[in-house]
Amino acid sequence: MFEQYDLTRKVSDEEYERIFPDLAARFGRLQREARDLDLPVIIAADGWNLSGISTMLHQFILSLDPRLYSYYAVSAPNREEEARPFLWRFWLRTPAAGRMTIFDRSWYSRLTAEFMRPEDNSVPDRSLREIVRFERQLTDAGVVVVKLFLHISRDEQAQRIERIKQEPEATILIDGHEDVRLEHYDLYLPIFEEMIAGTDAPNAPWTVVEAHDRNFTVIKGMSTVVHALERAIRERRSTVVPRYPAPMQPPSEKRLVLPDPTKHSLSKKEYQEEIDRYGRQITELQYALYQERVPLIVVYEGRDAAGKGGVIMRLTRRLNPRICQVEPVGPPTEDEARHHYLWRFWRDLPKKGHVSIFDRSWYGRVLVERVEGLSSPAEVERAYGEINEFEEAIVDWGAVLVKFWLHIDRDEQLRRFIDREEDPERQWKITPDDWRNRSRWEIYAASVAEMLERTDTKTAPWTVISSNDKRYARVESLRTIVDAVERALK
Amino acid sequence: MFEQYDLTRKVSDEEYERIFPDLAARFGRLQREARDLDLPVIIAADGWNLSGISTMLHQFILSLDPRLYSYYAVSAPNREEEARPFLWRFWLRTPAAGRMTIFDRSWYSRLTAEFMRPEDNSVPDRSLREIVRFERQLTDAGVVVVKLFLHISRDEQAQRIERIKQEPEATILIDGHEDVRLEHYDLYLPIFEEMIAGTDAPNAPWTVVEAHDRNFTVIKGMSTVVHALERAIRERRSTVVPRYPAPMQPPSEKRLVLPDPTKHSLSKKEYQEEIDRYGRQITELQYALYQERVPLIVVYEGRDAAGKGGVIMRLTRRLNPRICQVEPVGPPTEDEARHHYLWRFWRDLPKKGHVSIFDRSWYGRVLVERVEGLSSPAEVERAYGEINEFEEAIVDWGAVLVKFWLHIDRDEQLRRFIDREEDPERQWKITPDDWRNRSRWEIYAASVAEMLERTDTKTAPWTVISSNDKRYARVESLRTIVDAVERALK
Repeated sequence: MFEQYDLTRKVSDEEYERIFPDLAARFGRLQREARDLDLPVIIAADGWNLSGISTMLHQFILSLDPRLYSYYAVSAPNREEEARPFLWRFWLRTPAAGRMTIFDRSWYSRLTAEFMRPEDNSVPDRSLREIVRFERQLTDAGVVVVKLFLHISRDEQAQRIERIKQEPEATILIDGHEDVRLEHYDLYLPIFEEMIAGTDAPNAPWTVVEAHDRNFTVIKGMSTVVHALERAIRERRSTVVPRYPAPMQPPSEKRLVLPDPTKHSLSKKEYQEEIDRYGRQITELQYALYQERVPLIVVYEGRDAAGKGGVIMRLTRRLNPRICQVEPVGPPTEDEARHHYLWRFWRDLPKKGHVSIFDRSWYGRVLVERVEGLSSPAEVERAYGEINEFEEAIVDWGAVLVKFWLHIDRDEQLRRFIDREEDPERQWKITPDDWRNRSRWEIYAASVAEMLERTDTKTAPWTVISSNDKRYARVESLRTIVDAVERALK
Repeated sequence: MFEQYDLTRKVSDEEYERIFPDLAARFGRLQREARDLDLPVIIAADGWNLSGISTMLHQFILSLDPRLYSYYAVSAPNREEEARPFLWRFWLRTPAAGRMTIFDRSWYSRLTAEFMRPEDNSVPDRSLREIVRFERQLTDAGVVVVKLFLHISRDEQAQRIERIKQEPEATILIDGHEDVRLEHYDLYLPIFEEMIAGTDAPNAPWTVVEAHDRNFTVIKGMSTVVHALERAIRERRSTVVPRYPAPMQPPSEKRLVLPDPTKHSLSKKEYQEEIDRYGRQITELQYALYQERVPLIVVYEGRDAAGKGGVIMRLTRRLNPRICQVEPVGPPTEDEARHHYLWRFWRDLPKKGHVSIFDRSWYGRVLVERVEGLSSPAEVERAYGEINEFEEAIVDWGAVLVKFWLHIDRDEQLRRFIDREEDPERQWKITPDDWRNRSRWEIYAASVAEMLERTDTKTAPWTVISSNDKRYARVESLRTIVDAVERALK
């Protein structure tokens, strides 16, 4: 593939002086237009060692408003990053609406490292698949993704290594492994080709930039970005973004077929025995998880007053608070709302060996946001697949994922609402919203049915727990987690 | 000091069963009340190695709503943290309004490490001073700070080391240096005494907990927290928080005595020469900064249209984007507004060897927030000292700090506003707010005068630049930075 590129291409200094100022001004204008349109933009520049990525990007940003972009120079992951899935740090740096992130090297650097040293043959393939999904999820949500690959020959690289060692920038640009990488040039060549071929999608295409000549590199790189932005802005302008609240969607044909939640119950004595038994087990198992560096992620979903808080407390009190964290999920903050809706859940993933407990979760998209018309029908529709991909990514990473639907019926909810209202200690738990949600029981039920049907995958199955009896629900939740962890630890 | 504590104190199991449930329920109730009152709470637990800090804290959280607190187990700083001032990671974890952070070990761990291995005799004293300031700034802003020190004898520690090695928790609790620490028990003793004596302030008092008996430890520790919360809640309830907008304060007697901003100017030719000269110098110096791991922090303040954006661009285009970041400072986000106002500036400090450029800054507190009545007079008054302390902390850390006031007069601002309105490329730069701010020129001037007077310290002096002539301002800014960096690098 690389042979098709003519590395002798050049732009003379006069030509450059003629073209560049205009191009740069256009770029600056487009950045502001993107801001006004709330368009998020990613520029990912990758390429051979010493191919001049930073030099090119430096020219890019001359014309940009520094308040509207972030620059992220990718190096080896730090301890925090190492303990998370490999896309974690990139997800965290995806731009908010109207902002731009410039990646100086990108998620592809990790991919090539894997290709070179495959610990496990399936890893590069899996990473490739995850990268494709990552980019698609972003572009589906309206992010513009521009990917540039700077290509130089082996000889050119060799010359640059000699030259750069004399320069003051060497402190920033050189890490001492240049000669080794040069030696491996011919090994990397097919890897880069495979990588580019495998990730060159219409939504996030690659542009290979012939990078022997600095002027040519800047002009071709910047033109690519400028054209991509112009196209994206044109499209955005011509799209009428429908303003939903299409407040709530009518109940679908689907009906929630769930076990009768009154069927199971435990006596106080049974409860005490079982909760102690499973509680002790989970306390022990957490140390094994910690030692094996296996992360545990537990998701609790359920109606208002289904008992999520109580169940979660029965779990957390058995865990060492040093390694466990509860993430209460409410409406997104200002900042969260300006990112992809999965952004905050990526952010809140536990470290390896730690536990994250989600009190409500990413399923909000297909439950409350759907029912309240806070997301468009297209966004909701897309979410099922995105959620399945997200969960697959975290399970592939090595996490134990347990998802609970705490199931109560309408009468039980009413009893609990009334109890809460009468108890001064717990009045705070009940709000007018709860009563309002209750009035939409059936509409909500249809969303739950569809959620359970479409996101109950082999990788990440749902556990529905009859929760009219709190004791039963608490034991059942602990028991399920113990089983899942034991299975994972073999 | 430690000898006054009777380490034989115990609570029998029966007593514990009688006292604990009530105490825990009170604690849970207080947590919710603190939430309702938007009261932020810090619980910092420190003490001897294996004194049972986690065990005690685990009992604390049994009664807490896990959605309202964060638990932070302090270990050695990671790479990101190592590259920042030592309080950085603690600042970042200070609780938002209505939330609680539980520190399992705290900023004091670092302090004792310094006392043990003073690289430089001034370091522990400086850290001690910074800790006192840190706690005072937090409590001044209404944060409740409870500090517990768990005390055990040398013999007790020795026994626990033997016992714990057999337990499954060992994987989390033991790091292999237990025996060394035991050996140093007698060295630590006077250090702990000095540390406690030096930081036992009325706003953030220490409570030493005799920690041989687990029951006693939990009861005394939790009672301390419960009483502190009750007191704080009572005080908060009895304080009438005055609702300002006391929209803007009348111009004080002070008048801005600043150089005539029309006095300096540069011809195009002079400009080109000088900007190139200093530009080249700063490009070179950044590599020295990077190599010496000296962080550079540049602050730009000035009226609307004073030319901050242009000056910043002339600086950033000379810097490698890998090591430099522009922080545009606007109104705080939702989340930022729920923290101490310095929180976000701590967060945005550069790593060692990197550059942070603040486009507006922490001075907003005594400028726009003051003029617009967004902060109370007491908060503004307090801010001058807090800012001086903040800047002293970052300079002590080793940063080069350069603060600019870009000075234009009223006529020049008008000319620029009109220019902007007439230029389609730059219309976006001007908003109705700008015209409104302009109408308060004199009131704003008084705030600027007071700011310059009260925050122009030896550690962190202001540089006022005549900015009616943009060329002069741009050169002068670069020149000042070059000088400051050269001085810092000797």
